[in-house]
Amino acid sequence: MSQSCRAIVAYQPSNKQPDFRLEDVSIRDIEPDECLVDIVATGVCHTDLGVASRPDSIYPRVLGHEGSGYIRKIGSKISLNLQEGDPVLLSIAFCNNCPSCQSGHPSYCYSAYALNFANPGRDTYQARSVGTEQDFVVAGGFFGQSSLGSLAIVKESCIVSVAGAVKSRSELQLFAPLGCGFQTGAGTVSKLGKAQPGDSVAIIGLGGVGLSAVMAARIIGCKHIVAVDRIHDRLALAKELGATDVIHTGKLDTASLAEAVRNATDGLGSSLTIDTTGVLSIIREALEMTSILGRMVLLGMSKESIDIDMTKFKLAGKTLLGSVQGDVIPSQYIAQMIEWYRAGRFPIDKLVRFYKPEDIGPALHDMGTGQTVKPIILW
Amino acid sequence: MSQSCRAIVAYQPSNKQPDFRLEDVSIRDIEPDECLVDIVATGVCHTDLGVASRPDSIYPRVLGHEGSGYIRKIGSKISLNLQEGDPVLLSIAFCNNCPSCQSGHPSYCYSAYALNFANPGRDTYQARSVGTEQDFVVAGGFFGQSSLGSLAIVKESCIVSVAGAVKSRSELQLFAPLGCGFQTGAGTVSKLGKAQPGDSVAIIGLGGVGLSAVMAARIIGCKHIVAVDRIHDRLALAKELGATDVIHTGKLDTASLAEAVRNATDGLGSSLTIDTTGVLSIIREALEMTSILGRMVLLGMSKESIDIDMTKFKLAGKTLLGSVQGDVIPSQYIAQMIEWYRAGRFPIDKLVRFYKPEDIGPALHDMGTGQTVKPIILW
Repeated sequence: MSQSCRAIVAYQPSNKQPDFRLEDVSIRDIEPDECLVDIVATGVCHTDLGVASRPDSIYPRVLGHEGSGYIRKIGSKISLNLQEGDPVLLSIAFCNNCPSCQSGHPSYCYSAYALNFANPGRDTYQARSVGTEQDFVVAGGFFGQSSLGSLAIVKESCIVSVAGAVKSRSELQLFAPLGCGFQTGAGTVSKLGKAQPGDSVAIIGLGGVGLSAVMAARIIGCKHIVAVDRIHDRLALAKELGATDVIHTGKLDTASLAEAVRNATDGLGSSLTIDTTGVLSIIREALEMTSILGRMVLLGMSKESIDIDMTKFKLAGKTLLGSVQGDVIPSQYIAQMIEWYRAGRFPIDKLVRFYKPEDIGPALHDMGTGQTVKPIILW
Repeated sequence: MSQSCRAIVAYQPSNKQPDFRLEDVSIRDIEPDECLVDIVATGVCHTDLGVASRPDSIYPRVLGHEGSGYIRKIGSKISLNLQEGDPVLLSIAFCNNCPSCQSGHPSYCYSAYALNFANPGRDTYQARSVGTEQDFVVAGGFFGQSSLGSLAIVKESCIVSVAGAVKSRSELQLFAPLGCGFQTGAGTVSKLGKAQPGDSVAIIGLGGVGLSAVMAARIIGCKHIVAVDRIHDRLALAKELGATDVIHTGKLDTASLAEAVRNATDGLGSSLTIDTTGVLSIIREALEMTSILGRMVLLGMSKESIDIDMTKFKLAGKTLLGSVQGDVIPSQYIAQMIEWYRAGRFPIDKLVRFYKPEDIGPALHDMGTGQTVKPIILW
């Protein structure tokens, strides 16, 4: 039986500007391999904006992939140990069968694109056009959850039960982005990047991902944690979260960003460099600042190609790493992040700001200007 | 007191063709931080040819960096536990002080270029021009050893004592290339590439390095060992040494080399790809054939740049690795290779052919045509 709910629907963008509107919709009943979740909160991520800016995405569609909530209904084929009312966080969808999933790397699931982006769900929502009284279909299935709504139909692989681990509804609100942005930043340092105390970590771009990376590097006790951005407040926040050095890209007193990072790392360069910007000119600098034997992680999305001087790269024994979601297993890594949060070592409350669903516009605006690191919509 | 010896001297190349000549020379006395070694054998490596083909190298100079021999004289400041008459293998020179050396990665010594290539030694040899009776200076110091001669002045860092491990002079002859070509190939698989039994390894280019890589992959028991070359005999040898599949690049029955490798690896591609060719078009294929979550090692020298599509690279979680000498610690890894040889698992005798010093010309010729994988000059 379908139910009424509210959802933020993404419509065809004009001039590449996303068009999000809060709508009253009805959501269909679940299939045996799905759960219905009462969504409590949804973090907004740059990936939502990126998808909603593309003319060739699926429209209209409910996006959102950093959801948290309570299980309302459990499909008959769900094998997770779940009870109605259990608090859950939602993360990426994966198949659990391919070589990546089977070897503990669900972020690189062979069906990642199909399960997270391409699958529009099965006529998930019905909405009614304003003024026309005519129903139309709204797609769901984004990251197996489409959690930018007060109810969501969710695939099993996305569900991370936090029963026992989460103490209150307000904690569940705060934790919504753990399953994407925060795990990506922290996991890129601690899991994919395998940072050690002896590492000098350079983190370029201080959004939710970059600042989570700073916190993880601090937890590991990395020798140098060099945070780079062009917004002064972000650098101040990075410092508060544990960065040992901050570099304002607009106020370099060196010939290059690479030189500034070398100066901050005993002249050696960063042994682990993480680019979250996806900007080609920055990525070139990032590779340059990476030390002999250092690892450089491509984390930000970039449609461009990078030209690598093979002799230099080879002789310096550098490593270039592609990355998705910090290569974590969400169910394990979310538990770890919650432990860190409880110990006061992963203060994500400093990164978030809460918004009402009708304020999706201001939330996106504040994210764009940099006033808000991580907007969270409360349902 | 200087001593007479023979050495193969590299003179200024004409038309990028190396000009090697066997000469009677005199070699100076050692300094306190050097040893004099009675060279028994010297492997010839493509790096010798590469250096001797460049107009801007140091000339005249004795090259050679895969030497083996017996210690004849020990400098007063040598701290290694050595006795006169001890058999030794010679490997790369390193400083032992920089961050790379101190962390167990001497191949990436911060002074690698200075110690192995740029340092001409201190007036190492005197030679006499034919016909003129006039002495001239010949440089040494190549890889801290310049071992293409019957005597060599050697830096301490290059010396790997094999006293107790080597049974005869003929073994010492056979083992000469362990400290460069063979350790590079095997180390790139087992140490730098961290190959495991579940790996599908593609090895492109079957010289001494590539074939050593095949043997190491076989020792580890890698699931697929795909050997790629354009010489039929090399492919046959690779098969004999343990390759599970061989691909002749001149006789592809697929649209691309990448596709041929995918076909040989359950459709997934190689989880560890090693390019020994340095040829850009091949390297592009190598990156393409590398599986989701696979590692691709740049081993061959290439003066070119490679263009990497960052979206594809990132989403597939690939890793690109620069490499030098397989990232091994020669003293440890040589002991390991000798053990493997004794156990019949590293049959390097199938890769070598011995030549007299006066046959350096034919040796290089046979290496160029592919008739000989690894020429070894016997002194």
